[in-house]
Amino acid sequence: MPDTPFLFVDVDRLDRNLTAMADWAERHGIRLRPHAKTHKCAEIARRQLEAGAVGLSVATIGEAEIFAELGVDDLFIAYPLWLSENKARRLRALAGRVQLAVGADSVAGVRRLADAIGDTTATVLIEVDSGMHRSGLPAGNVVEVATAARDSGLTVAGVFTFPGHGYGPGSARSDAAAQEAQALGSAAEALRANGFDITVVSGGSTPTVQFADPGVVTELRPGVYPFYDAQQLELGSCGIDDVALAAISTVVSAAGPRIVLDAGSKVLGADRPAWTTGFGRLADHLDARIVSLSEHHAVVEFPPGTAIPTLGDVVRVIPNHVCNAVNLVDDLYAGTAPDGDLETWQVIARGANS
Amino acid sequence: MPDTPFLFVDVDRLDRNLTAMADWAERHGIRLRPHAKTHKCAEIARRQLEAGAVGLSVATIGEAEIFAELGVDDLFIAYPLWLSENKARRLRALAGRVQLAVGADSVAGVRRLADAIGDTTATVLIEVDSGMHRSGLPAGNVVEVATAARDSGLTVAGVFTFPGHGYGPGSARSDAAAQEAQALGSAAEALRANGFDITVVSGGSTPTVQFADPGVVTELRPGVYPFYDAQQLELGSCGIDDVALAAISTVVSAAGPRIVLDAGSKVLGADRPAWTTGFGRLADHLDARIVSLSEHHAVVEFPPGTAIPTLGDVVRVIPNHVCNAVNLVDDLYAGTAPDGDLETWQVIARGANS
Repeated sequence: MPDTPFLFVDVDRLDRNLTAMADWAERHGIRLRPHAKTHKCAEIARRQLEAGAVGLSVATIGEAEIFAELGVDDLFIAYPLWLSENKARRLRALAGRVQLAVGADSVAGVRRLADAIGDTTATVLIEVDSGMHRSGLPAGNVVEVATAARDSGLTVAGVFTFPGHGYGPGSARSDAAAQEAQALGSAAEALRANGFDITVVSGGSTPTVQFADPGVVTELRPGVYPFYDAQQLELGSCGIDDVALAAISTVVSAAGPRIVLDAGSKVLGADRPAWTTGFGRLADHLDARIVSLSEHHAVVEFPPGTAIPTLGDVVRVIPNHVCNAVNLVDDLYAGTAPDGDLETWQVIARGANS
Repeated sequence: MPDTPFLFVDVDRLDRNLTAMADWAERHGIRLRPHAKTHKCAEIARRQLEAGAVGLSVATIGEAEIFAELGVDDLFIAYPLWLSENKARRLRALAGRVQLAVGADSVAGVRRLADAIGDTTATVLIEVDSGMHRSGLPAGNVVEVATAARDSGLTVAGVFTFPGHGYGPGSARSDAAAQEAQALGSAAEALRANGFDITVVSGGSTPTVQFADPGVVTELRPGVYPFYDAQQLELGSCGIDDVALAAISTVVSAAGPRIVLDAGSKVLGADRPAWTTGFGRLADHLDARIVSLSEHHAVVEFPPGTAIPTLGDVVRVIPNHVCNAVNLVDDLYAGTAPDGDLETWQVIARGANS
């Protein structure tokens, strides 16, 4: 077994998750374009494409370059790129080797895109804000940006959104999916009314995907579902037996109902939304709570009367946000048990932020 | 200029911070053993040692191996190590090439240490809990563990603590430093009363160092001070002109009083303690607030009437917790201005978690 802490991928669960999502998408007539930012990993991208994904979503030009190098030939950079001179050169090179789509949400942004890739086969998707209030335009404003794109020589293939406000308790998931359908449907209709030939209406996300409206969306971009994580578990997007990645960790200190693990924020990530129960979960001790997290310490408390791991015990910790955990390591260790035979899967796009 | 986002180090500020801390330590007769987990960087380690540091602190065997390889010959692994067979082999090899000290806080832990390094020149420091309630023993319990260490052949050189509860508003910094002095003083006295020849009484940390008691501590292990960060700024440990590291970031989306930057949790880290104002600070817009953070988006809001950066503008973002930000990148870019001549400083110990 590798020295702890390390990230273990349960390959059986991974394959089951990939198949389930591919089947769901096929059953609903929706194209699946998984977001590769979650795994940044050749082995998992290959499995997703073999299971029927039409291509991959990525967040940065750097991620796109790495997956293009692997031979993935259909990529969507789901981000409102602002092109510096160097990024323009890099994007142009990419557009020459793969079928590329890129995001945009401003007139100034699309003019820069047009200068870089207006004479290529690359297409543009206009980003709509469906309620997360991050990037993206109100649905009523997409025609202006799409028109600027068309006028400057770009092909507008459609619209996209990320319903990230579905990461919340209660009815957040279904509410966000309903807003996603409303915003995307309204934006697509406005574009069609203005003569745009829209073929892509693209939504997200792992927590909202099961509530997506197949009458509106043509494509979905879930990221987290190959692994799931503690956030998804607590949102209800998955069950504990679906969680396919854990930080394998050792108990290094113990005092009464409190133990300290060697997995901290440098392997789990520091994500801790207010609605979560702590900084992650212990897979085999769901009643325990990670009450504080340092770079190399997780402090875990147990309720009275429960079995508490002791010094030297090895436990599985589920990160809150698996995308940030994976991005902290050079390699994932994949197999059927953390102390069994393990393959080393390189996180090839780790740190590809630009 | 590198493509954004990237981490820029202001070398003039860095050097000023290193000199100021070295001078402070010398003036108070305290040995400085900076924590290298913050920078993980050869160029900064060299500067710290040239400025008078007696050696480096590290958090993991992996970090120690990397700095030993560089020629740093005096290392303290400030962590209660639990040795697997492989970690025992690695630690023994380290003890054969550098002057090594390691942490411990349990009888079972020291027995494993003794098997690995009991016949080397390595020493052990017993960890005391001074109020953070992470790892470490109550001061009254150190004699038991120190005696087990001595009986199994280890040399107990002293005690250490991390007053991490000094990361808080109000009087947290000075309160934690007072508890540090109380706990370390009490533990050291108990050991001396039991015949231990204690030469090291080691404390932390960047926010508490100026309140440390030179009558008690012989050595301090601040980590963050070469760079500082938004947490330290908001705690009052530094001024804005002391902050020596920023994520250089581009405005990619804008809507009214809200802009979106391309620096997200994959370059800033996701740390967000409840007492902070947001997910980091904009160095040139201290009235702005980073209200939400995704992997590649920071959503920033500005108060009415303030100047708001526009699409394509490049801004400096100060991470909340610089240790986690540095650990996300392969290289730091160092110079006097982000768009000037920059040296590439590799983060050699990035990801060295085990």
